[in-house]
Amino acid sequence: MNNYTRARIGILGAGGYTGRELARLLARHPLASIGWATSESDAGKPLGDVIPGVDGPALVRADDADLAGVDCVVSCLPHGDSARWMERVRAAGVRGIDLSADLRVPGASTPDWAREAVYGLPELHRERIAGAALVANPGCYPTAAILALAPLLWRGLIAGPVIINAASGVTGAGRSPRRELLFAEIAESYSAYAVGNVHRHLAEMRSQADGLAGGAAPELVFTPHLLPVKRGILETIYVTLTGPVDDARRMWADDYAGEPFVRVMDGRMPALADVTGSNRVAIGVAPVQNVSVPMLTIVSAIDNLVKGAAGQAVQNLNLLFGWSETEGLA
Amino acid sequence: MNNYTRARIGILGAGGYTGRELARLLARHPLASIGWATSESDAGKPLGDVIPGVDGPALVRADDADLAGVDCVVSCLPHGDSARWMERVRAAGVRGIDLSADLRVPGASTPDWAREAVYGLPELHRERIAGAALVANPGCYPTAAILALAPLLWRGLIAGPVIINAASGVTGAGRSPRRELLFAEIAESYSAYAVGNVHRHLAEMRSQADGLAGGAAPELVFTPHLLPVKRGILETIYVTLTGPVDDARRMWADDYAGEPFVRVMDGRMPALADVTGSNRVAIGVAPVQNVSVPMLTIVSAIDNLVKGAAGQAVQNLNLLFGWSETEGLA
Amino acid sequence: MNNYTRARIGILGAGGYTGRELARLLARHPLASIGWATSESDAGKPLGDVIPGVDGPALVRADDADLAGVDCVVSCLPHGDSARWMERVRAAGVRGIDLSADLRVPGASTPDWAREAVYGLPELHRERIAGAALVANPGCYPTAAILALAPLLWRGLIAGPVIINAASGVTGAGRSPRRELLFAEIAESYSAYAVGNVHRHLAEMRSQADGLAGGAAPELVFTPHLLPVKRGILETIYVTLTGPVDDARRMWADDYAGEPFVRVMDGRMPALADVTGSNRVAIGVAPVQNVSVPMLTIVSAIDNLVKGAAGQAVQNLNLLFGWSETEGLA
Amino acid sequence: MNNYTRARIGILGAGGYTGRELARLLARHPLASIGWATSESDAGKPLGDVIPGVDGPALVRADDADLAGVDCVVSCLPHGDSARWMERVRAAGVRGIDLSADLRVPGASTPDWAREAVYGLPELHRERIAGAALVANPGCYPTAAILALAPLLWRGLIAGPVIINAASGVTGAGRSPRRELLFAEIAESYSAYAVGNVHRHLAEMRSQADGLAGGAAPELVFTPHLLPVKRGILETIYVTLTGPVDDARRMWADDYAGEPFVRVMDGRMPALADVTGSNRVAIGVAPVQNVSVPMLTIVSAIDNLVKGAAGQAVQNLNLLFGWSETEGLA
Repeated sequence: MNNYTRARIGILGAGGYTGRELARLLARHPLASIGWATSESDAGKPLGDVIPGVDGPALVRADDADLAGVDCVVSCLPHGDSARWMERVRAAGVRGIDLSADLRVPGASTPDWAREAVYGLPELHRERIAGAALVANPGCYPTAAILALAPLLWRGLIAGPVIINAASGVTGAGRSPRRELLFAEIAESYSAYAVGNVHRHLAEMRSQADGLAGGAAPELVFTPHLLPVKRGILETIYVTLTGPVDDARRMWADDYAGEPFVRVMDGRMPALADVTGSNRVAIGVAPVQNVSVPMLTIVSAIDNLVKGAAGQAVQNLNLLFGWSETEGLA
Repeated sequence: MNNYTRARIGILGAGGYTGRELARLLARHPLASIGWATSESDAGKPLGDVIPGVDGPALVRADDADLAGVDCVVSCLPHGDSARWMERVRAAGVRGIDLSADLRVPGASTPDWAREAVYGLPELHRERIAGAALVANPGCYPTAAILALAPLLWRGLIAGPVIINAASGVTGAGRSPRRELLFAEIAESYSAYAVGNVHRHLAEMRSQADGLAGGAAPELVFTPHLLPVKRGILETIYVTLTGPVDDARRMWADDYAGEPFVRVMDGRMPALADVTGSNRVAIGVAPVQNVSVPMLTIVSAIDNLVKGAAGQAVQNLNLLFGWSETEGLA
Repeated sequence: MNNYTRARIGILGAGGYTGRELARLLARHPLASIGWATSESDAGKPLGDVIPGVDGPALVRADDADLAGVDCVVSCLPHGDSARWMERVRAAGVRGIDLSADLRVPGASTPDWAREAVYGLPELHRERIAGAALVANPGCYPTAAILALAPLLWRGLIAGPVIINAASGVTGAGRSPRRELLFAEIAESYSAYAVGNVHRHLAEMRSQADGLAGGAAPELVFTPHLLPVKRGILETIYVTLTGPVDDARRMWADDYAGEPFVRVMDGRMPALADVTGSNRVAIGVAPVQNVSVPMLTIVSAIDNLVKGAAGQAVQNLNLLFGWSETEGLA
Repeated sequence: MNNYTRARIGILGAGGYTGRELARLLARHPLASIGWATSESDAGKPLGDVIPGVDGPALVRADDADLAGVDCVVSCLPHGDSARWMERVRAAGVRGIDLSADLRVPGASTPDWAREAVYGLPELHRERIAGAALVANPGCYPTAAILALAPLLWRGLIAGPVIINAASGVTGAGRSPRRELLFAEIAESYSAYAVGNVHRHLAEMRSQADGLAGGAAPELVFTPHLLPVKRGILETIYVTLTGPVDDARRMWADDYAGEPFVRVMDGRMPALADVTGSNRVAIGVAPVQNVSVPMLTIVSAIDNLVKGAAGQAVQNLNLLFGWSETEGLA
């Protein structure tokens, strides 16, 4: 495989925010193209009518998609539904990237075909992804949290529960009509949800944190909030350390040196606007003053639709096909 | 003094967001009226031209305000400037309410006249406020935090540092033109500031927490964020407890029973939209699951311009003049 | 009837944006109170749980509402459904105010009971409303347009078609979940709809304009737009005049002198923020320069939920019960 | 000159919204690169610190820019200031593109060097731009208006004044701190400005319309509005025709067939979201019903920072250097 290989991609579920973002990214990718894209409600319509600015074939229903006719299938289907389709993709002998949560945290009842899925966080698992047949694309909240915490988890520097206070734009909640997502309900408001450490992404974060810590990682307390913005996630993370550290920022700068999509902030903290529309994660670190125990505040920001979903899927696609990891994402 | 006493109020600094909100509240207050209001940049203009919907006298420069000609002066001047004017108000023998931070945390160099200021959080200091000559109106972040934490501080139930993750609408940053507050910079963004526990309000929170704890309160870690909304503060607070509690919500419900401006949520957490435009604080409490230590998450929401500033000033005014505490705030 | 009469009001359809606004206004009205309020989806819940800050009885289903047990019924039901209920209200001998479009423009098939409805624009039909049994509360777009155009229509000064370019906040589109009203679809966008002069409100505007002109009024061309704001309507109206006028603004100032809810701007044009939350209409007038025919631009702004719906209903209620017209609306 | 020629571009005034957008576009242009970029306030800082995601040399002060050291200078300086710098650029023998209004409408006092500027609307003046030494990049409002009206102006089909009701996002008002552009002033508001046909862009529109009409074009009435969005312009245009037309849309479809950046809508009208972030103009046309004279409503949308400024500058750059017109804009 070389840089000149081209690939045709099938998109399952192109009508939601994630699927649309993926279609936009693939439409300008120099080596990948959209083989087909599915939408149950918009089947038959030209892609460009449904997603302005994207040229491509007419949308089809998932049942009519030629799974074996593309080089890779990316699923943007809802949790639950997605695994069923990924199984068919695997049976067709085609590589798959699953953006749902279905394959990210294997459990006791996970079938063998699903256990082969590699967790698609390239900064941590680059080599394994490159050779994978099936990729479980990470959740948006876990992407921002795990990349922020990895330098401390690797070094075993965390004492006690980690507080992850996260806020997301509304595209993270999907494109299905729900009253609580109407403009008049969201604008000028802000709220916490899944309060009490009960969000689905917690298990994914813990599973990844344990892997990085090489055993039982510190406990995590995670509270997501809904922001009146379209896209973006910003997490403010509070960590108690096992002891004082001199130049905390240096750990992130060292660990992520050369990473094209990680920006370790210098001099100021990241804002959503630093990452909107890009595949970057921006991470800022500050020691906590005026307390008697050594603590850090880490601020981690991504675009939930790009690094938190479709952009990371393209990054994984680039690895799967041996292309430059930044292809189509610059 | 009785319910039929009326009072004329002077407003120092009526041109900012807080001063304008105060003018609007006083304009519909049944017992108070605006005696004069100052603005250096809009002096000479009718009040209604500067603050739509508010009838009243033309604005004057502060130097031209008849301090002794009103029954109470409320200062919405900036920090630093305000104390100087409050001293003159006291010298004129007139009662004063100061919305700046100048008088809230007495220090070694605080002069005697300023030491007499009572901290104007009515739910905690109602009796002292009623007899005060000078009231230090609380900061917006401390109002939400202290009312949320008081039930635990009173009972001595907190173990270890308290994490206060707060988010505020942009009116909290004032009305002076600054590039970082332009619509095109704030919309679709979100950011943390004063990261590392260095915000000015920390000292105020600690001072009040110590008072409630009857000694050294647990340490506080406070990170404010800037929301793309006009008004409102929502704080998500993480507390480690000294031991398990059975029905946590009950403590808040009991302590605030009968409080007209405290709403202890039942069944769901508060959102900004629950308090926008009102003088209420809305508090929700949830035990943190999936951790091995007993923890609570508390969510506390106020309108920063009302309960966090001008509304609380009116509540204090009502106490000063012996009126019903809800007068003009229903 | 005198100022001390109190009245109990029934609200049909209290769950939408208009019904909720009406409940909030009635909750602080000194002479009116909510007798019952209906909601099919929230029946059984306390009013305060559904509409924060509003005290009142539990919501009931419309079929369970005691129509005859209140002094007036206000319907916030959808178009089509509302007329059916208004007929029952009339049959029960109770006065009614209908906020739907059903009774505003009588047609050939309109039954007799519906023909008695008085068009509830108090600034134009105050006397007739006071004695009415049934009031057709005006549409939001027509309220802003007709009040802006009345001074010219009365005087017969308009030559040729009038262009009404209108923009509304999203609460005008209702609270039912629809994809095109999701925050992520509306934020950072703006669009025209019903382009080509085909909006339902056109007939209502024409009917009222004809009435004011005392015959066939000039033709109207009306294009509504959807703004990324929660509430408010601003209309920019272009009128070609039959001849030059010297001091155009004077006509509006004279005609609306003493009107408590009309503000004729002086020196600048109105913005949405001038009227949000109030029952005012703000009107600005400017001659059009750099053209060879005499033309005016008129800018008219209201809060679509207040003067454009619930506030105007309260204004009509005040007239029906002989109260001060500004009662509960100051 | 051929497709493989590369060019180094100098940016005067890279700190404003237009300059920043231009820097972002050039950073991903395959054939152009940023030679230098100026900012008086941020001189000395790396470009990437000031404009996230853009690599390039440190910013310099304009006085320190090597005008002759680049292949083309693009000015994003304010009106007034820009002409002075363009004169120097011409004196240095370097091609220039001016985004200010300074060179767009020659007047009696315009010096000869400025008269040679070609109006840079590629869809209308492609050939002349290709050979120009100096390009006057069109204003944002005129771009949307002139492209919308050209098919009618060419055919001489317009009778009477044209009403252009336009609305723009706030980046159109610049990045200098002004109170009226603060988030808390703009959010949830909307307003008209320059009411009465007095906006500076009117002369530019008239000048271009006259050119297209081959003489005196119909009069124009133009009212701009300020939208609570970051970027985008949508204009709703009302035209009275000299007579009925059968398939109005066909004229636009024919005239703009093959134009890469013009999308003539079919079936629905354009919204801001259709063009945000792209160099497209989207135009919809609808006959006006329910009037006795033949009229059309035309809706025209662009991104004010792209097709209305920096994107159109890149389109002109592509023409100047003989590159594909879509290079760097796909």
